[in-house]
Amino acid sequence: MKAVVSLNSGSSSIKFALFALDGDNPAPALSAGGKIERIGISPRLAIRSAEGAVLHEQAWPDAADLTHAQLLAYLFEWAGGHLGEREVIAIGHRVVHGGTEFASPRLVDPALLERLEALCPLAPLHQPHNLAAIRAIATLRPGLPQVACFDTAFHHDKPTVAARMAIPRHLHDQGIRRYGFHGLSYEYIARRLAELDPALAAGRVVAAHLGNGASLCAMQAGRSVDTTMGFTALDGLMMGTRCGALDPGVVLHMQTQAGMTAAEVEQMLYLQSGLLGVSGISSDMRVLSASAAPEAEEAIDLFAWRAARETGALAATLGGIDGIVFTAGIGENHADVRSRICRRLAWLGIAIDEAANAVNAALMSRPDSRVRLWVIPTDEERMIALHTLATISGRTASAA
Amino acid sequence: MKAVVSLNSGSSSIKFALFALDGDNPAPALSAGGKIERIGISPRLAIRSAEGAVLHEQAWPDAADLTHAQLLAYLFEWAGGHLGEREVIAIGHRVVHGGTEFASPRLVDPALLERLEALCPLAPLHQPHNLAAIRAIATLRPGLPQVACFDTAFHHDKPTVAARMAIPRHLHDQGIRRYGFHGLSYEYIARRLAELDPALAAGRVVAAHLGNGASLCAMQAGRSVDTTMGFTALDGLMMGTRCGALDPGVVLHMQTQAGMTAAEVEQMLYLQSGLLGVSGISSDMRVLSASAAPEAEEAIDLFAWRAARETGALAATLGGIDGIVFTAGIGENHADVRSRICRRLAWLGIAIDEAANAVNAALMSRPDSRVRLWVIPTDEERMIALHTLATISGRTASAA
Repeated sequence: MKAVVSLNSGSSSIKFALFALDGDNPAPALSAGGKIERIGISPRLAIRSAEGAVLHEQAWPDAADLTHAQLLAYLFEWAGGHLGEREVIAIGHRVVHGGTEFASPRLVDPALLERLEALCPLAPLHQPHNLAAIRAIATLRPGLPQVACFDTAFHHDKPTVAARMAIPRHLHDQGIRRYGFHGLSYEYIARRLAELDPALAAGRVVAAHLGNGASLCAMQAGRSVDTTMGFTALDGLMMGTRCGALDPGVVLHMQTQAGMTAAEVEQMLYLQSGLLGVSGISSDMRVLSASAAPEAEEAIDLFAWRAARETGALAATLGGIDGIVFTAGIGENHADVRSRICRRLAWLGIAIDEAANAVNAALMSRPDSRVRLWVIPTDEERMIALHTLATISGRTASAA
Repeated sequence: MKAVVSLNSGSSSIKFALFALDGDNPAPALSAGGKIERIGISPRLAIRSAEGAVLHEQAWPDAADLTHAQLLAYLFEWAGGHLGEREVIAIGHRVVHGGTEFASPRLVDPALLERLEALCPLAPLHQPHNLAAIRAIATLRPGLPQVACFDTAFHHDKPTVAARMAIPRHLHDQGIRRYGFHGLSYEYIARRLAELDPALAAGRVVAAHLGNGASLCAMQAGRSVDTTMGFTALDGLMMGTRCGALDPGVVLHMQTQAGMTAAEVEQMLYLQSGLLGVSGISSDMRVLSASAAPEAEEAIDLFAWRAARETGALAATLGGIDGIVFTAGIGENHADVRSRICRRLAWLGIAIDEAANAVNAALMSRPDSRVRLWVIPTDEERMIALHTLATISGRTASAA
């Protein structure tokens, strides 16, 4: 009776999932999952069962000094009680950046940690928190195998033309490249699509991870050949609070003409832009959809326009398009956004089944559509669990 | 016997053309054209006839203190001799920025100059030089009608969704928008296409201005509905020395992690990037085409890949594509680059006639191509002259 843990540790939150492993069922079964939020301010924890029932809630009002390590210790304590006889045999971590080196998950050891530490300047807002969690667990549970699963890895082998920016080449050689992110989500989608629609999975597919963070991935036979996110998670599609693709001249203008510092511009582009910035109302598509304000409509319209425009760009990379898969919060739940995007792409031979779309049906294209349209819930935590199990047993997740 | 002058005054160069007007031929006839280069360093001037014969050359070695105004005076002196009996009745200026206000050319008066001055922060590298030339001419030739022709105007009426960036909306309201440039070139192309292929001109066309600066324009019935350049001329396609579209996170990274100043990053992205940056060899496509270095091939490949990718994006804006027009230095003369772009777009039903393409034939698509492909030389100077004549006679150039 065993279990495996998936962990995604950020600056102010820790997402986790516990998967039970049973001898007669090789697929990990979600046992509990949840999130600690507002770390450093006023932490609170909520844990739910696979069915969505609340298993545990806890708040630490105004406990701004509670560290990630202390909260992880609390979590492991709770997990021990919840799992009972089950033994946690490994923990997998989402690590945002694998740099140019890592195309697949890796078992953590001190040498690996050192190499990942060196990548912190490439993702200063995320990588240090990912690594701090690995260190905290090493102290908490010495000897527990830990696996680093990289959000960049799925895009690692895309053609070099899709990795290069038109900047001086010594910068490319130093690692200033288009890496791409949301890789664990896209890898999961590629696996699921291969089960649901193997013929399409063998073809040219644009996967649309539309959540608070958002990107597109061009997949050829299940492998990433292009993606809209670049060197950072700021590029590409418009997001909840991030700007997406932006004329680099704007970043310079805000400094040289408008007197902002680089740090202030960074703050603005990560936290005050996107749906929130354009609407002036909310970063949450649910709130905007329910709003009658013209500014909300403008934000939704721009979001869909840009997603359609970038789908056209990725279709050019793929040399045509056989299918689109929508996933993540907006992609799984907002029929209106999916419909807007698909209608803008009717010229590609896309015919949406609006009735199927309205109920978030898995297959939402009409039979006569030249492009098949799917809605597939993503599950990065499960992908991490699969990678973790495979890595500790010396296999790859695709063979798991 | 009259004449009209087109002028494009930059920081270190002045481009100009003299057009003769004859009563029995309403179309302006190019009489002479040329360029003063290296102003502020070691100015030199070359003037050629319409047939390309050298009419005049002059150099001022190490005369770093010769001002634009002094050089314009020299030019007018020469023009007076060259034109003989002909009277210059007006001068038209390329003015890079018309902001949100100006959708068409304007006769210059002090009030206009003041409004254009207020736009300098939007184009600090170009607008001040454009306006300085207008002031210099006003001193040199008081009473000579001057017309400001805006490089943004052709894009002025595109849908607002194509003008908006996903940044806080007060910045959009303050003018931080996607304006687009190369408008005088696109307007000329739209006119010529209407003469050469009126059916196509009424449809969905991507015009590709591929020169040292490069952009694409999506035209619907001859009007711009989207373009790859944004707030500045740094965005969109890869160029000779400019980066084109770039993850805004890279601009921030170079400052916060690599210790560069905003001014240093600006210098790098405008002058050391693009074809030059990627190849490490040259910003000139002719040099790269002739090179056997793999870095030259990488630069050309990336240039074509990105142009094809952005054509896919603009096709999404247009809802499909009926034709592509190539223009400007690379677009008019580099068959290999055109061929690479078109082959990447074969999925759109594009079939290139490689024999026609090889000789820069005007129509270079095969008869069975779903998308018609044209090569049309651009002529921004003529477009300025047409606008200037129309404006001083109270008409619009499209009716000229």
